[in-house]
Amino acid sequence: MESTATFFTAVIYGMEKPAPPPGLTWKKKAYSVIFEADTPAGRNFDIGLLWAIVLSVLVVMLESVRSINAQYGPYLRIVEWIFTSLFLLEYLARLVVVRRPLTYAFSLLGIIDFLAIAPTLVSLVLSGSQYLIVIRTLRLLRVFRIFKLGRFVGEGEFIVRALKASRFKILVFLTAVLTLVIVIGTLMYVVEGGKNGFTSIPKSIYWAIVTLTTVGYGDISPVTVLGQTLASVLMILGYAIIAVPTGIVSAQMATPSTPSPSYKQVICHVCQATEHRPEAEFCWRCGEKL
Amino acid sequence: MESTATFFTAVIYGMEKPAPPPGLTWKKKAYSVIFEADTPAGRNFDIGLLWAIVLSVLVVMLESVRSINAQYGPYLRIVEWIFTSLFLLEYLARLVVVRRPLTYAFSLLGIIDFLAIAPTLVSLVLSGSQYLIVIRTLRLLRVFRIFKLGRFVGEGEFIVRALKASRFKILVFLTAVLTLVIVIGTLMYVVEGGKNGFTSIPKSIYWAIVTLTTVGYGDISPVTVLGQTLASVLMILGYAIIAVPTGIVSAQMATPSTPSPSYKQVICHVCQATEHRPEAEFCWRCGEKL
Amino acid sequence: MESTATFFTAVIYGMEKPAPPPGLTWKKKAYSVIFEADTPAGRNFDIGLLWAIVLSVLVVMLESVRSINAQYGPYLRIVEWIFTSLFLLEYLARLVVVRRPLTYAFSLLGIIDFLAIAPTLVSLVLSGSQYLIVIRTLRLLRVFRIFKLGRFVGEGEFIVRALKASRFKILVFLTAVLTLVIVIGTLMYVVEGGKNGFTSIPKSIYWAIVTLTTVGYGDISPVTVLGQTLASVLMILGYAIIAVPTGIVSAQMATPSTPSPSYKQVICHVCQATEHRPEAEFCWRCGEKL
Amino acid sequence: MESTATFFTAVIYGMEKPAPPPGLTWKKKAYSVIFEADTPAGRNFDIGLLWAIVLSVLVVMLESVRSINAQYGPYLRIVEWIFTSLFLLEYLARLVVVRRPLTYAFSLLGIIDFLAIAPTLVSLVLSGSQYLIVIRTLRLLRVFRIFKLGRFVGEGEFIVRALKASRFKILVFLTAVLTLVIVIGTLMYVVEGGKNGFTSIPKSIYWAIVTLTTVGYGDISPVTVLGQTLASVLMILGYAIIAVPTGIVSAQMATPSTPSPSYKQVICHVCQATEHRPEAEFCWRCGEKL
Repeated sequence: MESTATFFTAVIYGMEKPAPPPGLTWKKKAYSVIFEADTPAGRNFDIGLLWAIVLSVLVVMLESVRSINAQYGPYLRIVEWIFTSLFLLEYLARLVVVRRPLTYAFSLLGIIDFLAIAPTLVSLVLSGSQYLIVIRTLRLLRVFRIFKLGRFVGEGEFIVRALKASRFKILVFLTAVLTLVIVIGTLMYVVEGGKNGFTSIPKSIYWAIVTLTTVGYGDISPVTVLGQTLASVLMILGYAIIAVPTGIVSAQMATPSTPSPSYKQVICHVCQATEHRPEAEFCWRCGEKL
Repeated sequence: MESTATFFTAVIYGMEKPAPPPGLTWKKKAYSVIFEADTPAGRNFDIGLLWAIVLSVLVVMLESVRSINAQYGPYLRIVEWIFTSLFLLEYLARLVVVRRPLTYAFSLLGIIDFLAIAPTLVSLVLSGSQYLIVIRTLRLLRVFRIFKLGRFVGEGEFIVRALKASRFKILVFLTAVLTLVIVIGTLMYVVEGGKNGFTSIPKSIYWAIVTLTTVGYGDISPVTVLGQTLASVLMILGYAIIAVPTGIVSAQMATPSTPSPSYKQVICHVCQATEHRPEAEFCWRCGEKL
Repeated sequence: MESTATFFTAVIYGMEKPAPPPGLTWKKKAYSVIFEADTPAGRNFDIGLLWAIVLSVLVVMLESVRSINAQYGPYLRIVEWIFTSLFLLEYLARLVVVRRPLTYAFSLLGIIDFLAIAPTLVSLVLSGSQYLIVIRTLRLLRVFRIFKLGRFVGEGEFIVRALKASRFKILVFLTAVLTLVIVIGTLMYVVEGGKNGFTSIPKSIYWAIVTLTTVGYGDISPVTVLGQTLASVLMILGYAIIAVPTGIVSAQMATPSTPSPSYKQVICHVCQATEHRPEAEFCWRCGEKL
Repeated sequence: MESTATFFTAVIYGMEKPAPPPGLTWKKKAYSVIFEADTPAGRNFDIGLLWAIVLSVLVVMLESVRSINAQYGPYLRIVEWIFTSLFLLEYLARLVVVRRPLTYAFSLLGIIDFLAIAPTLVSLVLSGSQYLIVIRTLRLLRVFRIFKLGRFVGEGEFIVRALKASRFKILVFLTAVLTLVIVIGTLMYVVEGGKNGFTSIPKSIYWAIVTLTTVGYGDISPVTVLGQTLASVLMILGYAIIAVPTGIVSAQMATPSTPSPSYKQVICHVCQATEHRPEAEFCWRCGEKL
């Protein structure tokens, strides 16, 4: 959960553009097209890039479907190489255009941009790795920047802030859940006697997680009376315990909206009254000009 | 989610009656029966219509059950045609009676009314399409209007308002969830090696959705140790992440009741400013004594 | 949901003792033992009754387990008849002891007390009905009264009040969910072509409920690509939509604690200031005695 | 739920160190190493202990995996005995070092410390019991103390306080849920006629729990039309009812942060009254100017 919050923060705050090159050269112009979305050219570049990402991810997905691969495999692989070449060119262009290429290369954006092309290149050597290309989807998060949706960023920040503020509470909660799952998983292994799918403690813990989170695949399920009783307890616990993270986040999200921002932090020099309306020009208590 | 909110809004706000015909003709009378529910006749018409909708939907459902269809099929089809004829007559009556037939025909209500009869007509040509008749259930939402349950509409509006106010937050959340599901689905495809049901990336993404949402059919479930570990992480994430939409909506629903009561409902007689602090004795905008 | 709220309210408010008999006779004494829990005798009677209920429910459960029934069946049936006789005696005693027997017989408590013995009696004639005896568990709700746990009753009332206050919102929500489930269920029937378990529209609707509520048995699960896509949409909807009832109840439960009871509803006769602390004896603005 | 709250409270509050031995002897020094984490030695001891716990739990888990056990079984058992010896030594050292050994032995920490070594010793006599060693994971909760994460303890206390404050509400809720599950489980047994997995009432109740909590294994699922209808009702109930514990905990967590800020933090110099209204100029109790 914490890593999720960190990830989001990184995505939203960390997606800051690297510093532009100095001077008014062609580099500066290219920079504004590639990194910014204020000009029509920059906007079009970003929208085109987004479509390229979506399409290339779709190609990789289709390639994995056996029937489609059997028929259109070679074509799909060609399309994929075209996309990878485009992304490679784009990556190199970004490196060339920024002021400090290394800073960009090791920034979050730079690493994602690199990972988006690496798998295809590696697949020349190591078969199978090309599927990791789906890391490209992470690039889709750029969408929030392209449309300059300040609104979305604000909302994203709201979620991230709430998650960050409650990350210690959630960590405590997860530690308790993990301990619970390990203890009950082991008990089930002993109770079901290593049969009915509970063939080892790790597998029983896996079952306990499947049950506590109310996923319930049914690939492993208790058969003995004692096992089913224990499972019932775990299920009801899981059902009730979900109230904890939900309550934490709800409470967190409900509080930030109430504090004093609805009042202006100005003190009247006559009567010292505070908490004026944000637009107030006169003191509400003595009528003095603020 | 946004489309759900839009849909609800459309249903509740958009269910406004089309304009009545001018003059005090028979049309006006028919209009009041068909479109309004204030008079006993209009009320009875609407309740009758509601029952017809419920019964016709039931008939279509029963028709799809093989054993019932084998025995009562012909009768059910006759009943269905009777209902469709009735709805067709009603639809035509609505078109005749309103001031601007085209406006009605392309309003939300008009389109639903049309779709409720179209499938049966189309089924003359294209077999199978008659099941789409269940779109008729959408007409059941009229129930809120018939009983003039201002209370229900108010409550519906409350839910819609909360969903609308949080739609950007929910959209950001869904984008993050979708990205997560695509990335983990692909990883699982690689990890399970295209076996154990993870036969393609789209199928693995389907599995990831089944797991993250805690549905857990069990038609596909990981078998390898690494796969089960990854699945456990996804499950716990799904279990914890549900706190986010819940928190968003809870916080949204908890706030609207607090805001304005913190202001005094007095209008300044000089500058017409409202929303003064509860204890204010002077106008915050012009300094006039309230 | 509404019926649940009504049920709870009935249980908690409606569990009022029927009127005691007039005069200071032996009836009055018996009444205090059977209906009240203030005296040691009344308390012991109630605790004994509670244990009898728990044990008799356990006996019925055990009887239904084939292996136990084969071995101990006759004994269990004897025990059950003993319990039923006891409950019959208790029921008759209650009828004799109250002021108006008919009022008690048709009160909620009286009906539950009757239903708790009826199945065993009926089972003499109609085999199988004896399992309905489990209605006896409803009598367990008496526990809240026995221990005079005013605290528990208060908490129960809190939950009931929150559910009652939000019952219209929840009804609107359930109507929307039901419509959604019917429409998507039918679509799935058409999409999966009546195969893979989707053999009829009612069955498909059953599947849609299993999926939307994130239960996910897996007895029916989509196989076609289009079906799995539709299922994914339904799952994500179900995952996000759960925020609505949760938000409604959370908001409802969070509000009652805040309203103005923290201020005294008195107006100062000198400066007209309101919103004094509950214990205030002097006006906070002008210092005048209230 | 209550027991969970109690457990947490015990863990966090009850993890107080037993009293140190009197005097400035070697015992006092050993005590500070073993029980405290302020000195570098104490900190290292605790971190080492933590790693030993994690490793020993992992060893027990691996031992339960058949393929690993077949190959490395003897080595794993040796490692386990080494860890158990270490923990035994540690336990004895703790007993020796504290002022009152018996108080420690019967404190929560002492019992957990004992249970962490008992299973291996017992396994000499009773095979199979060694798996209970996983109780050792409970010792992992020490982690919160080692890093002196006052923050974590505070957050843990926050969760515990919210759970404690709502424990009566949750108990009422669980009683209602249990009654519901027993009644519906029995009904299903009657409806499905003891077939399709509903072979006894306890098994049907197990199914009802699996369904209501939205786990849904699918090992038992209704087949008859009436059974599926009843199941649908139960599922929707379970889906809606989860709003209750969530709402309880959310409301509880949201309230503690709001109360007192509505009062002015000034103490009346005459009557010592606190908690005045934010704008108060005069004491609400004695009318003195503040």
